[in-house]
Amino acid sequence: MTTGRQLISTLTADGQLTLELEEKDFPDPTGNQVLVKMEAAPINPSDLILMTTGVDLANADYSPGKVVAKVAPPLVAAQAGRHGKPQTVGNEGAGVVVAAGDGEMAQALMGQRVACVPGNAYSEYALADAMMCIPLGDHTCEEGASSFVNPMTSLGFVETAKREGNEAIIHAAAASNLGQMLNRICQEDDMGLVNVVRKKEQADLLKGQGAAHVVNSSDEDFEAQLVKAIADTGAFLGFDPIGGGRMTDTCLRSMERVAAAKLTEYSRYGSDQPKKMYIYGRLDMSPTILTPSYGFGWTVSGWLLMPFLNSCDMPTLIGMRQRVVSGLKTTFASSYKSRVSLEEMLTKDAMMDYAQMATGEKYLVTP
Amino acid sequence: MTTGRQLISTLTADGQLTLELEEKDFPDPTGNQVLVKMEAAPINPSDLILMTTGVDLANADYSPGKVVAKVAPPLVAAQAGRHGKPQTVGNEGAGVVVAAGDGEMAQALMGQRVACVPGNAYSEYALADAMMCIPLGDHTCEEGASSFVNPMTSLGFVETAKREGNEAIIHAAAASNLGQMLNRICQEDDMGLVNVVRKKEQADLLKGQGAAHVVNSSDEDFEAQLVKAIADTGAFLGFDPIGGGRMTDTCLRSMERVAAAKLTEYSRYGSDQPKKMYIYGRLDMSPTILTPSYGFGWTVSGWLLMPFLNSCDMPTLIGMRQRVVSGLKTTFASSYKSRVSLEEMLTKDAMMDYAQMATGEKYLVTP
Repeated sequence: MTTGRQLISTLTADGQLTLELEEKDFPDPTGNQVLVKMEAAPINPSDLILMTTGVDLANADYSPGKVVAKVAPPLVAAQAGRHGKPQTVGNEGAGVVVAAGDGEMAQALMGQRVACVPGNAYSEYALADAMMCIPLGDHTCEEGASSFVNPMTSLGFVETAKREGNEAIIHAAAASNLGQMLNRICQEDDMGLVNVVRKKEQADLLKGQGAAHVVNSSDEDFEAQLVKAIADTGAFLGFDPIGGGRMTDTCLRSMERVAAAKLTEYSRYGSDQPKKMYIYGRLDMSPTILTPSYGFGWTVSGWLLMPFLNSCDMPTLIGMRQRVVSGLKTTFASSYKSRVSLEEMLTKDAMMDYAQMATGEKYLVTP
Repeated sequence: MTTGRQLISTLTADGQLTLELEEKDFPDPTGNQVLVKMEAAPINPSDLILMTTGVDLANADYSPGKVVAKVAPPLVAAQAGRHGKPQTVGNEGAGVVVAAGDGEMAQALMGQRVACVPGNAYSEYALADAMMCIPLGDHTCEEGASSFVNPMTSLGFVETAKREGNEAIIHAAAASNLGQMLNRICQEDDMGLVNVVRKKEQADLLKGQGAAHVVNSSDEDFEAQLVKAIADTGAFLGFDPIGGGRMTDTCLRSMERVAAAKLTEYSRYGSDQPKKMYIYGRLDMSPTILTPSYGFGWTVSGWLLMPFLNSCDMPTLIGMRQRVVSGLKTTFASSYKSRVSLEEMLTKDAMMDYAQMATGEKYLVTP
């Protein structure tokens, strides 16, 4: 038995959120389980759903290792399934295996640095399935901390695009860590990529990393830029982590403008060209707005990592995992703005900052 | 050569719409073409795109056989492909074959009543492909006028649902002619159906036709009714002809509530249950609003008849067509509120009325 602190998130039906470091006894691992002493875990947007989404951080009650705050009513209602049920936080991270079950795979990892996806990565210790751990070899825990969510997601986009017969994709909020990975993967795989960013610095960053097509949504001629990039690449599939507002709509309308320009005869129903956008995040929690301006040949769909992985066969999964490990310092490298301890991640300054999910300003938790 | 009047719709780039009956010479049919003397043609919502959508009918200039009106700027822009290009109007109808090409199929139809899909059904005559004509036998032209769009669309919904592995579907605006057909088909095929209507009379109408599940969107407990009907039927696929506003959103959220109630463990990403809505019309031209309240396991997609038919193999198509002909007086019967001549369909009273696309108040044009 090992004792350590881990972060717990509890939401009550009346809308009070408590984030608290709690002492917990971790049982000795059995079978193919390993106990990992966590050393580094990124704060991804998907982790923030349990920590900051809809939370009144400005007026919260902060004390060492504890935050109590109010959550906006619609988001309280939307999370009815977790009312009163304590949730662990932190999808992924890396650390050192300090105990192992007697299974062969677990024993083989004893003493090694590994990346893992325990679901309670913001913790001093985590029990993980040896089969899901990635041995990091010479890589540091910081280098390996983000070796699951972003790498598998960006590889998943390219795999999804290929599977559905596409030669190019659009990516919104493209200067993120994930977006930079996607930019490198697309260059390696010869997949066309239209990067949509909202600042000139972000455009420069991606162009410096070899991006051929970058359009800036803050420019006055944004839609004209987007139409030209779609025409140049043939991108009729896109991935949008913003979700709310009009980004998905703008992409579909721009795709249709490219397709309609090729029509020889007018069709009141729009072009035959299938147009598709996947929403894989909700950086903007306002509703998605879809205008009737691109006929009926379109699809908007949610995209999530786990269902995608479940749809892959084993050779594909093993291939993706090997590609990630061999590219941790290059294709799949992540960068972090700040490093915080478990206590520091619960301070007002830190929370107000990482809750913004600003592009390229990711936090790393070092328990 | 035969001469007759047909309706022409012309939109200019500066937003002026002209609907006018024009004298036209119809050439003698060749090969497997037939010339049909049109006797009855329905005004479907899909026809109104070229006639009333976004059109200022209240302030239009009406003269016998001619209407000149202004179109709202966003809809002028959305139809750039037809600026200055005269369009014929009227997808489908029925009439008598008065001339035939020398092809065998065409000759066999000579003198017969047929249903056809000429694209210029609001006309005294129409040239049609014999292969696309349905011989009506003992049926009148009025009985056969709507034997393509609504029957094939409602059969297409059930075929789509089966193909995607569903046992039940939701249908919005369910008291329409199309909705009543769908209600009959679903009962024949043992496919679960949740009918969504907005008036008590419409609910009573469908219940009188054997519908097991009818929910009224005007009731205060609409969402609770919908959730219960989804739970009872297992309908996680829906078809929405409204398009704009929140109907599709409400259906997806209700599906998720049913799926979430079965979860044993909380998931921040929502349930694994795939939820899908097809938008097949735009009775409401305002934007579709999608709120972030049903995770990421959802899809919203356009649905159109012609791409669907193109996706079917020949035996399926022939089977659907035979089913329609044998059920023209029963399953696929249509009803009409008013009958108008070509001149009458261009009067202010008629246009202001059918432009509303009120449920169950369809017009029939009798050239």
